[in-house]
Amino acid sequence: MAQVGIVMGSDSDLSVMAKAAQSLEKFGISYTINIISAHREADVLVDYCNKAEQGETKVLIAGAGMAAALPGMMAALCPSIPVIGVPIAGSGAALGGNDAVYSILQMPPGIPVATVAVNGGANAGILAAKILAASDEAMAKKLREYTQNMKAEVMAKDAKLQELGYRDYTK
Amino acid sequence: MAQVGIVMGSDSDLSVMAKAAQSLEKFGISYTINIISAHREADVLVDYCNKAEQGETKVLIAGAGMAAALPGMMAALCPSIPVIGVPIAGSGAALGGNDAVYSILQMPPGIPVATVAVNGGANAGILAAKILAASDEAMAKKLREYTQNMKAEVMAKDAKLQELGYRDYTK
Amino acid sequence: MAQVGIVMGSDSDLSVMAKAAQSLEKFGISYTINIISAHREADVLVDYCNKAEQGETKVLIAGAGMAAALPGMMAALCPSIPVIGVPIAGSGAALGGNDAVYSILQMPPGIPVATVAVNGGANAGILAAKILAASDEAMAKKLREYTQNMKAEVMAKDAKLQELGYRDYTK
Amino acid sequence: MAQVGIVMGSDSDLSVMAKAAQSLEKFGISYTINIISAHREADVLVDYCNKAEQGETKVLIAGAGMAAALPGMMAALCPSIPVIGVPIAGSGAALGGNDAVYSILQMPPGIPVATVAVNGGANAGILAAKILAASDEAMAKKLREYTQNMKAEVMAKDAKLQELGYRDYTK
Amino acid sequence: MAQVGIVMGSDSDLSVMAKAAQSLEKFGISYTINIISAHREADVLVDYCNKAEQGETKVLIAGAGMAAALPGMMAALCPSIPVIGVPIAGSGAALGGNDAVYSILQMPPGIPVATVAVNGGANAGILAAKILAASDEAMAKKLREYTQNMKAEVMAKDAKLQELGYRDYTK
Amino acid sequence: MAQVGIVMGSDSDLSVMAKAAQSLEKFGISYTINIISAHREADVLVDYCNKAEQGETKVLIAGAGMAAALPGMMAALCPSIPVIGVPIAGSGAALGGNDAVYSILQMPPGIPVATVAVNGGANAGILAAKILAASDEAMAKKLREYTQNMKAEVMAKDAKLQELGYRDYTK
Amino acid sequence: MAQVGIVMGSDSDLSVMAKAAQSLEKFGISYTINIISAHREADVLVDYCNKAEQGETKVLIAGAGMAAALPGMMAALCPSIPVIGVPIAGSGAALGGNDAVYSILQMPPGIPVATVAVNGGANAGILAAKILAASDEAMAKKLREYTQNMKAEVMAKDAKLQELGYRDYTK
Amino acid sequence: MAQVGIVMGSDSDLSVMAKAAQSLEKFGISYTINIISAHREADVLVDYCNKAEQGETKVLIAGAGMAAALPGMMAALCPSIPVIGVPIAGSGAALGGNDAVYSILQMPPGIPVATVAVNGGANAGILAAKILAASDEAMAKKLREYTQNMKAEVMAKDAKLQELGYRDYTK
Repeated sequence: MAQVGIVMGSDSDLSVMAKAAQSLEKFGISYTINIISAHREADVLVDYCNKAEQGETKVLIAGAGMAAALPGMMAALCPSIPVIGVPIAGSGAALGGNDAVYSILQMPPGIPVATVAVNGGANAGILAAKILAASDEAMAKKLREYTQNMKAEVMAKDAKLQELGYRDYTK
Repeated sequence: MAQVGIVMGSDSDLSVMAKAAQSLEKFGISYTINIISAHREADVLVDYCNKAEQGETKVLIAGAGMAAALPGMMAALCPSIPVIGVPIAGSGAALGGNDAVYSILQMPPGIPVATVAVNGGANAGILAAKILAASDEAMAKKLREYTQNMKAEVMAKDAKLQELGYRDYTK
Repeated sequence: MAQVGIVMGSDSDLSVMAKAAQSLEKFGISYTINIISAHREADVLVDYCNKAEQGETKVLIAGAGMAAALPGMMAALCPSIPVIGVPIAGSGAALGGNDAVYSILQMPPGIPVATVAVNGGANAGILAAKILAASDEAMAKKLREYTQNMKAEVMAKDAKLQELGYRDYTK
Repeated sequence: MAQVGIVMGSDSDLSVMAKAAQSLEKFGISYTINIISAHREADVLVDYCNKAEQGETKVLIAGAGMAAALPGMMAALCPSIPVIGVPIAGSGAALGGNDAVYSILQMPPGIPVATVAVNGGANAGILAAKILAASDEAMAKKLREYTQNMKAEVMAKDAKLQELGYRDYTK
Repeated sequence: MAQVGIVMGSDSDLSVMAKAAQSLEKFGISYTINIISAHREADVLVDYCNKAEQGETKVLIAGAGMAAALPGMMAALCPSIPVIGVPIAGSGAALGGNDAVYSILQMPPGIPVATVAVNGGANAGILAAKILAASDEAMAKKLREYTQNMKAEVMAKDAKLQELGYRDYTK
Repeated sequence: MAQVGIVMGSDSDLSVMAKAAQSLEKFGISYTINIISAHREADVLVDYCNKAEQGETKVLIAGAGMAAALPGMMAALCPSIPVIGVPIAGSGAALGGNDAVYSILQMPPGIPVATVAVNGGANAGILAAKILAASDEAMAKKLREYTQNMKAEVMAKDAKLQELGYRDYTK
Repeated sequence: MAQVGIVMGSDSDLSVMAKAAQSLEKFGISYTINIISAHREADVLVDYCNKAEQGETKVLIAGAGMAAALPGMMAALCPSIPVIGVPIAGSGAALGGNDAVYSILQMPPGIPVATVAVNGGANAGILAAKILAASDEAMAKKLREYTQNMKAEVMAKDAKLQELGYRDYTK
Repeated sequence: MAQVGIVMGSDSDLSVMAKAAQSLEKFGISYTINIISAHREADVLVDYCNKAEQGETKVLIAGAGMAAALPGMMAALCPSIPVIGVPIAGSGAALGGNDAVYSILQMPPGIPVATVAVNGGANAGILAAKILAASDEAMAKKLREYTQNMKAEVMAKDAKLQELGYRDYTK
């Protein structure tokens, strides 16, 4: 059974949510990925959440745009599973993308959503890994290595900048 | 059976939503008024909406603050009943109240919410009356009278201003 | 005589407002569609509204951008007809499109506008159908079917995603 | 006949618009002051504007809050009279007062409103004086004196600050 | 001597400010057009404003972007000449263009700027014509004709829409 | 050793962060609570995070206002521990509290912060419980009970509203 | 001769700008403090800046609210002196205080203002000390001590919190 | 040893930060340029800052986007060196670029960052020159010349506009 369930409200969210899947794959975390609309098929969502709550799912990742009710409704329907919310907004989106951010972030007391950055699909996957690491030392070790690799990448870029200078860096 | 169902997400919304009730009373429209949280009792909301959809309810009015999912979920669960959404925000609210506005207004294609102004409880009631008037000429007549009265009130205020001048108007 | 009147403030709003017309066509709702500027031809607007108010028009849909006075003025001039307002904003619009949203949404007490999402022409048409359904059981039935169809479409997309996986879904 | 017409949408705007009147009084400019709601009494507004347009009114000042249609409608109905718009917003107003600003400022091509700062009633009166000064050298002279007086006041405050120091200045 | 002085802070503002010039040309209003930076050549600006204040200039139009000090400084340096401010912002501008709007609109008491819409160069020219019309009946007459023409244009567009229908309108 | 570490950037954040502690107490979760400023004592923060990373801490909760770097720096310094961020903003805060929200939410790829609502201290504690529940069935059970209690509370409020009516509810 | 010149646009800015003075006093930096309005007395500002530019002033601190032109004009008039800008906004200020922030921050290329936080008078003084420290090792030493003291204060607060617990901390 | 240290959080910031380098080159100021991520390699940042603080670096320039912690952390880690912060945001960036602005500007008391405009890399370099000029009369002279050149450039553009007219200026 999958450890993480990824859900998006529309297939237009797929390019962002695919990054969440890719993050999970990097850490060897099993997952399912589904398109479920909170507004268009509330009963499907209730079924999904009931199964998740009764099953082995450890973490949920929900991405949606505009008046993004999906993450909050999943947090409500899954009382014991942490839900990570991904606000989705295209470039030049109306209202600057604040609609999705506020709809996901500003949850009332009792039903938190762990909100990440606008279009932060990759970070949602990594946050899921960190949550799993709370009870999985092997995952914690992978995350420390991942963090070391990020550091090495930035150091390599800086070394390249020192070598080439800023004028030639992007050529 | 009531023509209009008023629902609010929390009893902290009552002072705003009471104005919706008062508007309906002015027009002699029957209504029910309930506190139902979309996030805290989704099953209660589903029951409420199913009954409304199968019953005689003509219009729904839903008020909520912050990540206000209630109006949108009701619009989703009641495919044939128009839902009026009231964004609720206290004075000096964080984010200027845009969280509630965007969460209610920015519904995806297929599930509209008829959104009114921030804390616009009174207008929600009047909009319900206008919706009912679409098939009720007596209601239409009341609305025309109401509009005449609003005009008369402003004209009376202007007459008072002409009589007293701006310095004494507010004394 | 048409059940719904669509009005836009400028022909630059046509691509958004055409979606309102298409929504109405799906539900077999008769409509007229006009370009009338509140600011450039107030007398034409007054005439239009007076005729609507005295005639058989059940719902009005008004779309405008920037300092969008059209929906509010129509709501004022048609005391007994519900007016649906569509804020219009191009991609990358100045002020994020908040100018049109606030100009339509924030109506004073007594003259509500049923505001839908930015560029929400399609939803405006569906909201009109829901309003008509309040006194038209056949329309209510169509809306329930429409909602079932939306659900089926999302379920089909999810089935495709399960079949193809996220990497091949968009190929 | 008055040179300037001050109009406000509601008597709740009076404290801000009284400052416009006081500015005009300082410059000896005759004015009328009225409460006229664009949304509640459009015909009264049309009459008012037609009389202004046919009469001797040189400048109009219009103040309103929220979805403030009054200044723009007056600009539309008075093709040859400049209209100064005053966005009105209380302290801690929802949406930060941007609703009134955008509703007044963002007029479409052809119908400008000369917008001043939020709650800028005093400045509206002074702008009216500057507009009148375009054809009235005596008014221009008064404005130059007024500007000299403002300068003298700031200089006096600075002199007081030099004398007392910042610790005792506000005691 | 020119009746109106157009000033812009940078030649990157020219495409917007050219529309102000074109509006003035339509009304037969003489004008000068200059590039003067408030921040890069304050002394040139002081000279320009002193000459304007002592000369025959009736109205000033100032356009600038970002932290747009030009309109406000001109309003300060020309106590008896009304200054129209044009906030300038490219598509997708950082901060949604609010930087230019607020920098021009929010003037302190005593030094108003008549602010028009973002990139509202054309409206700035028309507002100048309305200001001149306060003492020029021929100009007032031209503005009334201009307003009639705008109305006729919208009516023609509506007639075209009625003839072609919305599907063929834009073909 | 404590399961959760609460950290705030300043003692002015204490009233919000105390709610996080109270949430944890409800669920019987052990915690420490500290004041550590990312900007004023970076070395103390590094020490704190190193100890947390090497120790038994399962979840971190970090609250801060304005340019709130604390949650993000903790997420960076603790590669294997999920960090919950609480944006803090007083009523009527400058910039509407968006400074704290954006500073915590908009983390770059690789270093997510699980952001909750403005002043959402209580929700931060509950989110920590949900994260712990991923590997603790007893905690999951408590969360399900907590959710049932929230539901019962809202139902009790609704029952009171049905009994008293909206006029007497708040008396 | 004073090392730093503090200027504010209005005496209503004094409570914020007094904190800049107090910061300078802590570091033994000589300063002058003046009220000069960019808009009300441009010639006084030009004189002040010319004297500063020709004299020994090392750093300027300028505070202003709304359309805050003062810091930018001083940066323009003092080509060789760094200007620190302080955006000033009262609690619940219209537009969230963004007017002052954007007017000061968004300077065009060539004329930077070193902008600090809203109402950040204290930080303006400290930034001035850091600028002076670039050529004054004794000042650098004081700043290092100041930073140590800030750290010690936070550590003392944390120690108090550990001793008293969060319930008794604020009693 | 270099007088100025330029640091950016990611190589995606290079096009903006290269302008800072180019500004410094114009003024003959020595500099280093590095990519260092506050979140991905905090220890590298601490080392960098310790060396800067103990060495001869006079000014630091730090550019970052989104939740931009880099400038603030450098200001914290370098108690005696002024840090100039550059908020970075692409065209059509989510949240209008306010995330980077607020994360850099809104520093708490004691740790100021000298923030410049969005993408204001060029201005960051010039501000560094102004800071150095506080103790370097030759630099002050260069800045005065630079300012004269900026003025001459604008005057030349205005002369070209007078010669060609606005229609031919951009051809």
